[in-house]
Amino acid sequence: MSRIVDVETVDLRFPTSRELDGSDAMNPAPDYSAAYVVLRTDHPRVDEGHGFTFTIGRGNELVVAAIEVLARRALTWSVEELAEDLGGFARHLAADSQLRWLGPDKGVLHLATAAVLNAAWDLAAKIAGKPVWKLLADMPPERLVDLVDWRYLRDELTPQAALELLRRAEPGRADRERHVRAAGYPAYTTSAGWLGYDDDKLRRLCREAVAAGWDAVKVKVGADLHEDQRRCRIVREELGPHRRLMIDANQALGVSEAIRWHRALAGLDVHWFEEPTSPDDVLGHAAIQRAIAPTLVATGEHAHNAVMFKQFLQAGALGVCQLDACRLAGVNEAVAVLLLAAARGVPVCPHAGGVGLCELVQHLSIFDYVAVSGALDGRVVEYVDHLHEHFADPVRLRDGRYLPPESPGYSARVHPESLARYRFPDGAGWAGSASS
Amino acid sequence: MSRIVDVETVDLRFPTSRELDGSDAMNPAPDYSAAYVVLRTDHPRVDEGHGFTFTIGRGNELVVAAIEVLARRALTWSVEELAEDLGGFARHLAADSQLRWLGPDKGVLHLATAAVLNAAWDLAAKIAGKPVWKLLADMPPERLVDLVDWRYLRDELTPQAALELLRRAEPGRADRERHVRAAGYPAYTTSAGWLGYDDDKLRRLCREAVAAGWDAVKVKVGADLHEDQRRCRIVREELGPHRRLMIDANQALGVSEAIRWHRALAGLDVHWFEEPTSPDDVLGHAAIQRAIAPTLVATGEHAHNAVMFKQFLQAGALGVCQLDACRLAGVNEAVAVLLLAAARGVPVCPHAGGVGLCELVQHLSIFDYVAVSGALDGRVVEYVDHLHEHFADPVRLRDGRYLPPESPGYSARVHPESLARYRFPDGAGWAGSASS
Repeated sequence: MSRIVDVETVDLRFPTSRELDGSDAMNPAPDYSAAYVVLRTDHPRVDEGHGFTFTIGRGNELVVAAIEVLARRALTWSVEELAEDLGGFARHLAADSQLRWLGPDKGVLHLATAAVLNAAWDLAAKIAGKPVWKLLADMPPERLVDLVDWRYLRDELTPQAALELLRRAEPGRADRERHVRAAGYPAYTTSAGWLGYDDDKLRRLCREAVAAGWDAVKVKVGADLHEDQRRCRIVREELGPHRRLMIDANQALGVSEAIRWHRALAGLDVHWFEEPTSPDDVLGHAAIQRAIAPTLVATGEHAHNAVMFKQFLQAGALGVCQLDACRLAGVNEAVAVLLLAAARGVPVCPHAGGVGLCELVQHLSIFDYVAVSGALDGRVVEYVDHLHEHFADPVRLRDGRYLPPESPGYSARVHPESLARYRFPDGAGWAGSASS
Repeated sequence: MSRIVDVETVDLRFPTSRELDGSDAMNPAPDYSAAYVVLRTDHPRVDEGHGFTFTIGRGNELVVAAIEVLARRALTWSVEELAEDLGGFARHLAADSQLRWLGPDKGVLHLATAAVLNAAWDLAAKIAGKPVWKLLADMPPERLVDLVDWRYLRDELTPQAALELLRRAEPGRADRERHVRAAGYPAYTTSAGWLGYDDDKLRRLCREAVAAGWDAVKVKVGADLHEDQRRCRIVREELGPHRRLMIDANQALGVSEAIRWHRALAGLDVHWFEEPTSPDDVLGHAAIQRAIAPTLVATGEHAHNAVMFKQFLQAGALGVCQLDACRLAGVNEAVAVLLLAAARGVPVCPHAGGVGLCELVQHLSIFDYVAVSGALDGRVVEYVDHLHEHFADPVRLRDGRYLPPESPGYSARVHPESLARYRFPDGAGWAGSASS
């Protein structure tokens, strides 16, 4: 039996606030960051599993500290046990009753759980010699169901009903895998519409996006209604009538404000309205969804666990499920949400961007298509063209579609040179910076 | 103008798991702990504000680290500004957009915010020469309304409606203050029914509770249904038919399980069923409340912010609002929840016990009675007879009722000897312990 012999963590931060990349109504100056972890093993073939969670700067050190606390719990499992029983391993990680008090299942500790579980999946997939999406897509339905902690989900979906759902999708797995390998998985871009860009840059980026073949663009809104009207009109002009325009308020608005905002953009044919209000407000989102239909409410990048998604689905509070590979507790909880969404027929369009989120969520969406929902309609994975150069196995886009990753693992590994350069606060990338 | 010149933090932990005090279905072996903070000032009269948040052991160090991150933001305000504008100060603390990503408004960072704000209130109350409940009860309605962050609450309660509610309660303030000073505020005890105690100890403690004048006792349930039936029968026997029996599952159950549990205890006249399931599951609690009426659903000790309470109230998902003075972001967010609950006519019965929670919540409930709800019916503050000896201004109970604190401040100060003895891991109280 092999063991995890060492845990290395890195407080990795990129000084993105210098350029206002990623600026929105709630996050005017993010430094895209990752609380990064390497599980080192004495396994004869696979010596490392890499994982991370995403933050936007300050406080990343708290998540790193939480990873170190949690990773101690990983050391009691052999690598083989972990790779065989990723459901049990996830439940083991979450089972420290004293740590649970700090959540439960939310905030710093849950983000740290995501990093550790993502690293465990990277390790298990490398041992299996497959990318994570393929490891998942090859699992029998019983094993997939066992990945999930069902304690609080059974009133919405029983393990038995999940099993039946997965069995119904089984016959088509091979065909869909061939299809996605050939055609890729559809994507959309957020790169054009950050709030910090001026009108000229916005127009130029939209034009470039259209020229590059994108048929959907998302714009950040929520700080000033008149500006948003002007900016969204620019984007609609550049997109023409048939491409999709999405807006994203990043939680800046109250419930009635969000409804008023949407009304003020009438005529611009908004496809979805993302994060209109507090991510905790299931009933508020339900009220907004009722008011803005047929525009869809999209949310999930801050929905912290499967119990929240369960309720969003039960309340009809979202039309687009934007799970996050690092906000949820890793692959296991993402699988739970994919099952919940598929059972309700709600499309999953994962949140991406940030640091490495595109690298992770492509695995989840491709797995969803091959083995869970079996569907592509209404489904797109976010794409932002930031920071991919730091990854050893970066995403590959072709004609606005993600090509399935081929290397074993979870595409989570950051180049050693990038880890060294952007290690906060002592990396050379931070030299002379006043940030803290 | 005076300044906060230093911030001291203490990782304070009591080795309560050695005695199984506080054991329940989710928390088999808690070490009651406080992430403790002292704001030191150069104010001519008041040199310190003390605050803390409560945890149950491991991970307390993460909250302490988060307090240190947040407290840096406190240093930019003068003591006088802070004491004059506690609403603005609270919004300032929460306004770091990078830190917000780690919640928002939940988990480790929100617990840390509670500690810092509680210390700020202790400081402001000492400057005013009043206990916190009296500082609040003397504030004009406009100032009370300004304590709250209304961004996500307006669809349920507008600031204007809150103002009117407070104005309606104003004429009776003086009478109610006299009454509560004379008669105290009603309490109930949880000391009898911890899960780790055997039947004989349970029976003896119930008998003692009745003899001591308690007319309500709470029992921990949720691990084993047959055991719970036996234990609850013992408690009902000792209480007689007229005293109140409450049960508390500490989130151990799923939605349908909780309903089954309640059904199995039929005939024991359960007054409330506390934390039946996941604290995030508003809709689940609503389903349970519909199924178990007239037994009331009680929850709140893990409801992490006012947006959650807003929804619990909107969905009719609770009959008893158990806000927590350290889970919510300090006095400000507690005031928000008191207003929301009063507007719906739902009684607030705060969660207490732990380390110093009784010391804090008495202020909130007494303020609620004097200036918000103006009511006592259905209201009781939890009382647990643990660890009060470590506080400089401990709660005073008389005939099962809390007597209003008289010393200026928030009753939050722990004796220096206790801070030294139970500082983790190096205090003498932890010498030779294997815990970590």
